[in-house]
Amino acid sequence: MVHEPSKPGQLQIGYIQPVNDLGTPFTLADQVIDALRVVIGQKSAVLHEPSFNGNEWLYLKECLDSTFVSSVGKFVDRFEADLAAFTGAKHAVAVVNGTAALHIALKLAGVNTDDEVLIPALTFVATANAVTYCGAIPHFVDSEENTLGVDAVELRDYLKHHTEQRAGQCVNSTTGKIIRALVPMHTFGHPVDLDGVMAVADDFNLALVEDAAESLGSYYHGRHTGTFGLMGTLSFNGNKTITTGGGGAILTDDAELARHAKHLTTTAKLPHPWEYRHDEIGYNYRMPNINAALGCAQLEQLPVMLRAKRELFQCYQAAFDTVSGVRLMEEPAECQSNYWLQTLVLDSNNADQRDILLQATNDAGFMTRPAWILMHELVPFRECPRMDLAGAQSLVQRLINIPSSSTLLQVQS
Amino acid sequence: MVHEPSKPGQLQIGYIQPVNDLGTPFTLADQVIDALRVVIGQKSAVLHEPSFNGNEWLYLKECLDSTFVSSVGKFVDRFEADLAAFTGAKHAVAVVNGTAALHIALKLAGVNTDDEVLIPALTFVATANAVTYCGAIPHFVDSEENTLGVDAVELRDYLKHHTEQRAGQCVNSTTGKIIRALVPMHTFGHPVDLDGVMAVADDFNLALVEDAAESLGSYYHGRHTGTFGLMGTLSFNGNKTITTGGGGAILTDDAELARHAKHLTTTAKLPHPWEYRHDEIGYNYRMPNINAALGCAQLEQLPVMLRAKRELFQCYQAAFDTVSGVRLMEEPAECQSNYWLQTLVLDSNNADQRDILLQATNDAGFMTRPAWILMHELVPFRECPRMDLAGAQSLVQRLINIPSSSTLLQVQS
Repeated sequence: MVHEPSKPGQLQIGYIQPVNDLGTPFTLADQVIDALRVVIGQKSAVLHEPSFNGNEWLYLKECLDSTFVSSVGKFVDRFEADLAAFTGAKHAVAVVNGTAALHIALKLAGVNTDDEVLIPALTFVATANAVTYCGAIPHFVDSEENTLGVDAVELRDYLKHHTEQRAGQCVNSTTGKIIRALVPMHTFGHPVDLDGVMAVADDFNLALVEDAAESLGSYYHGRHTGTFGLMGTLSFNGNKTITTGGGGAILTDDAELARHAKHLTTTAKLPHPWEYRHDEIGYNYRMPNINAALGCAQLEQLPVMLRAKRELFQCYQAAFDTVSGVRLMEEPAECQSNYWLQTLVLDSNNADQRDILLQATNDAGFMTRPAWILMHELVPFRECPRMDLAGAQSLVQRLINIPSSSTLLQVQS
Repeated sequence: MVHEPSKPGQLQIGYIQPVNDLGTPFTLADQVIDALRVVIGQKSAVLHEPSFNGNEWLYLKECLDSTFVSSVGKFVDRFEADLAAFTGAKHAVAVVNGTAALHIALKLAGVNTDDEVLIPALTFVATANAVTYCGAIPHFVDSEENTLGVDAVELRDYLKHHTEQRAGQCVNSTTGKIIRALVPMHTFGHPVDLDGVMAVADDFNLALVEDAAESLGSYYHGRHTGTFGLMGTLSFNGNKTITTGGGGAILTDDAELARHAKHLTTTAKLPHPWEYRHDEIGYNYRMPNINAALGCAQLEQLPVMLRAKRELFQCYQAAFDTVSGVRLMEEPAECQSNYWLQTLVLDSNNADQRDILLQATNDAGFMTRPAWILMHELVPFRECPRMDLAGAQSLVQRLINIPSSSTLLQVQS
């Protein structure tokens, strides 16, 4: 199957439309599958799989040999120190997963029962769930084309017209509830417009907590995502750039917040050689040492993985350059993305092609998926407040994640 | 240091009081340390450490080699099947820890915001915390000498006088709130009086959820603890009889409850090859495959560990038989305890010796600890309702856990 490259936009005079062996014009699905094959080869490919090419086995074995597999052990401390060093955050607190990290970060940001928290409608459900664990209500925000993240311009306009400041707090004029925090999420590893978002948070008295679950290794203006807000949260789930099996972390520059996060995530027990005194309602959110051991080894490999993921992006870029009607998501200006999930963005007039492409690519053995169903369309969040979500609604019709493993080029057939 | 054995009770005429080399009578602390040395030898000993003498390495390596370390993988399914087979429960759902297991079990038992839940005051804080995660209020219950668990006789009397039945629900006459559930805990692995507790739950319309975090391998009248209530919960924390690093499980015979528990603990996502639709507020409580791999190997070793722990009990029994003023906690009648934590119970007139013994034994290199501070004495639970807690208050002054690792006899010096 050979065909001439097509160009973005309408067919031009003199341009030869790609055809298959029977002379039938190639569909967009055919072209996408062809482009995937150019990069991946004839093999099938999952969306994202981890790779363990470093000291993973060595460190796991050390855990078993020492019998320190659980809540006590040196790898937890080391993983936290290594994460802080890598991200440039002053403190990192390792926890059991990214959802737990968000839950505790929101709690420490002062999110209380009946508060509202601004989060993108275009996010994984964990962001919304974590808000509800605080007894609070998600308030959905629109996303924009350049970053796939919070649209700071539209959000500012919305807050200007729908909130008022009372005693230094942002109050939803319709519900009368305090909007306590803003949680931008760095979608698929692409940094959100942090300058815009931070200015909104400042101007409207909102605590800024970054959901950096997807963006370990992503930088905004040279600084690691998750280190701009009061706190940032990471995830090391099995589908993430690096994995601890299950795991997450809270990043912060504030020593007291870090101490409190550690305390709350370890049952709020006061230090004592044998006494079990807990001074507040705590959580069993600590990361086990065995998972942290995996994390230490994975973090050592992160620079290699990031290079491989960038290289994969470049290969896709070359392959999809010739496919009209779709663009490959590129890191925003002055940003460095980790390219966690490589993403196709369909042109607006091709939105009706999304499900056809999903079916065709999955049928062809290439695991692809759309973005998440927007939060306000899920049954548990239907009644939550929201701004106009035209941007997110348009994006979600047009986003397709394609195979993104850092090992994908190595296993090419 | 050689001394004559002492007998329980007062000194008798003709009995030679034990003395040290200087002719000074031995203190109780000296005698306890001597008895510990008889069993443990001259080495120091921690309270409880895991042992990895089976297929732990093999299964962990299999995880890494397959790259399935996270939420997907065969060890989670196998661990659940193995747990069900071992305990005789029809279904087991593996989760991230025992606290998460309790949280979800309580939710599925119908515990709602502002309900009350009866739990022992003498328990680890997780039992109380899990109640609060449901928005509910712990209501503290007394414990009794024979089992260290819920005193069913006193509880029945208390409920008779302080609750009323309204439309088939148990209502606290003082607070007006519904008492939704009763959560007995099998303390240090000793089965609670389940006949008594089940009858109370039946008679007062309370959902029965067993906190079996400490009692994997413990049986009541030949049936495994955690399989009597609507649901039971297990823990595989690093200090437990078997460990997954961090982990827990929900046991139930009810297929629909098991399905729902799995759904809620895996973000309540509906099955679909690529669509992310969640139909209720869920949790990221799944056990990672790598932790389940450890669990599968540990569960294979459980019978060996249980035998070793019983043998340790017998050695302690012989050693402490000669120490007056203290008894070694023995499994209740018609029960088989896992002897998770071996426990000394001071006679009532020796309650003032507890802290002296704790200090002396820890100073001597034997890690010992008291039971937990009673829940109603912790700041976050001070205002919670409670029955008279005389039994628990007496017990907590007299309980001391002593080194209990299943490997303790192997490493004897």
